[in-house]
Amino acid sequence: MLILGDSATSRAESLSTYGENPHQKAALYRKLDTDPDDLINNEQHSGKELSFKNIANMDCAYDLAREFSTPACVVVNHNNPCGVGLAKTLSQAYEKALLIDPAIVLDSVIAVNRPVDAEFAHLLVDNAVKVVIAPSFLADAFVICKKSKHLRLIKILKWGYKTEKLNLDYKSIGGGLLVQEKSPCRMPSDQANVVTERKPAPNELRSLDLGRRVVKHAKSYAVAFARNNHIVAIGVGQPNQTHAIEFAIHKALRRNLSLKGTALASDDSFLSRDCIDIAAQAGVTAVVQPLPNKRDKKMIQAADQHNLAMIFSHTRHYCQ
Amino acid sequence: MLILGDSATSRAESLSTYGENPHQKAALYRKLDTDPDDLINNEQHSGKELSFKNIANMDCAYDLAREFSTPACVVVNHNNPCGVGLAKTLSQAYEKALLIDPAIVLDSVIAVNRPVDAEFAHLLVDNAVKVVIAPSFLADAFVICKKSKHLRLIKILKWGYKTEKLNLDYKSIGGGLLVQEKSPCRMPSDQANVVTERKPAPNELRSLDLGRRVVKHAKSYAVAFARNNHIVAIGVGQPNQTHAIEFAIHKALRRNLSLKGTALASDDSFLSRDCIDIAAQAGVTAVVQPLPNKRDKKMIQAADQHNLAMIFSHTRHYCQ
Repeated sequence: MLILGDSATSRAESLSTYGENPHQKAALYRKLDTDPDDLINNEQHSGKELSFKNIANMDCAYDLAREFSTPACVVVNHNNPCGVGLAKTLSQAYEKALLIDPAIVLDSVIAVNRPVDAEFAHLLVDNAVKVVIAPSFLADAFVICKKSKHLRLIKILKWGYKTEKLNLDYKSIGGGLLVQEKSPCRMPSDQANVVTERKPAPNELRSLDLGRRVVKHAKSYAVAFARNNHIVAIGVGQPNQTHAIEFAIHKALRRNLSLKGTALASDDSFLSRDCIDIAAQAGVTAVVQPLPNKRDKKMIQAADQHNLAMIFSHTRHYCQ
Repeated sequence: MLILGDSATSRAESLSTYGENPHQKAALYRKLDTDPDDLINNEQHSGKELSFKNIANMDCAYDLAREFSTPACVVVNHNNPCGVGLAKTLSQAYEKALLIDPAIVLDSVIAVNRPVDAEFAHLLVDNAVKVVIAPSFLADAFVICKKSKHLRLIKILKWGYKTEKLNLDYKSIGGGLLVQEKSPCRMPSDQANVVTERKPAPNELRSLDLGRRVVKHAKSYAVAFARNNHIVAIGVGQPNQTHAIEFAIHKALRRNLSLKGTALASDDSFLSRDCIDIAAQAGVTAVVQPLPNKRDKKMIQAADQHNLAMIFSHTRHYCQ
């Protein structure tokens, strides 16, 4: 374990496991002025100690899950959301989240924004899930979950509590630290404007909103294709925006998931009209991108040619 | 600008630009006990102020470029290496690095481990490169580079100076900080052992070594295909290891880059023999993966069936 000692603003907590790799020692520090809704204010109810990777993935999963007010299931792996479903029940949301690729459950962290019930608990145990984060666990669900000795049950003390406090994000560089404000954990949905001839239908608006929330928490370039309250395809972490779109489409089609009628969200503005053309050919009917740029006339023209509805969200959510 | 104030161990430096996105304020902190070879100990010789994204990318580019003793050119975008070339001159190394995709130059950071000469300076200006990091700039190269008002010339005060100091890596989570030791900036090349019937040839060993150094600095799952002193294909940031391999192959083939005779490096152990089979079908002749795991017998068997040479490096370099 790596111990740096306590300071005026933070305190070392136990973390017996190593860092991202076995040759890297690691530690977890708790800020002394935490909010009740901070991830660190959790209770672990079963399973082995959390690893460095678990905690990093938990941060992404929790922040995305609390973006939603309807029941949501979020699957995170390698610090990227890789499956998201919204539904009336957690079990239905989980099934929607896994349509994209059932293999994503392996070594992932799952976050849900409703108390875990017995039906959902059975799915967790049957699929050998390792970490689930939730606002609480119903008594019968708790008994079922305890059957798996690997499943870590993590209860957030005050789920999604609204805070106005400045949250900071750190990136270490050689000899220094880059520090920035974190994006707020909840995205406002009222800053969008339609720029195309066709306006998005209510179901397209819902899908665009879901996609925007997902790409906000995914590594850039990130694109998400949403339909019927779940993510059908997602592309993350590519240096080339067109590749992110193409690979997302490729993955979906190989699993026989049609992209017809999906809404496409992008974390950064489209750099070439290829992006619009490829999306339209795959069946996308609505698009949201952050900021108008120098190319916005070309993009609007391309969208109009394909009869797409396009929205400018005015908020870029690029993250490395 | 975000100001947190100085402390006993760090001091705020100027950073007038915003963070990863316009709505996020940002700052840069300098540790008071820096080493001469730390990225922060640099001199900027021309161009606009560095942005948050520039500095984050510079950290990755510099750390990878100083892994090499032969002349190297590294292109980094979105905190991932996306082009790497080794050659007798920087210009040749640059051309090799860009074979993978000339578009990667856009908004990227380039790091080279030799003084920038006039020939290389012309390439930088002609291709509208924005940031180049080097140990120094020759006088005539400096004059050429100054023709571009956008090109930032960054000289590291003491390139690749050997330090034994503990370097730390931070990841902010809600209410806390995950801290781990950083991997050393130079990878030892003497910890590999051959596990297959066929031993790697000297050129395969060189390619395996190049690939290992690249995936160490790329987001997981990361795979790199190397041949003739450059990276032919790279897959980064995928939640599914097989997809990382498939997409890397797909990108290369679309640019008519053959993968015949390439060596494949993976940052994590292969989870299924699909990985070996797909690589072999694409033309890979040698493979390096970090640690033997429960599946290693199957993996060795698969490699032997394809007449691949396989090495266990015994060092995982997973990073999120």
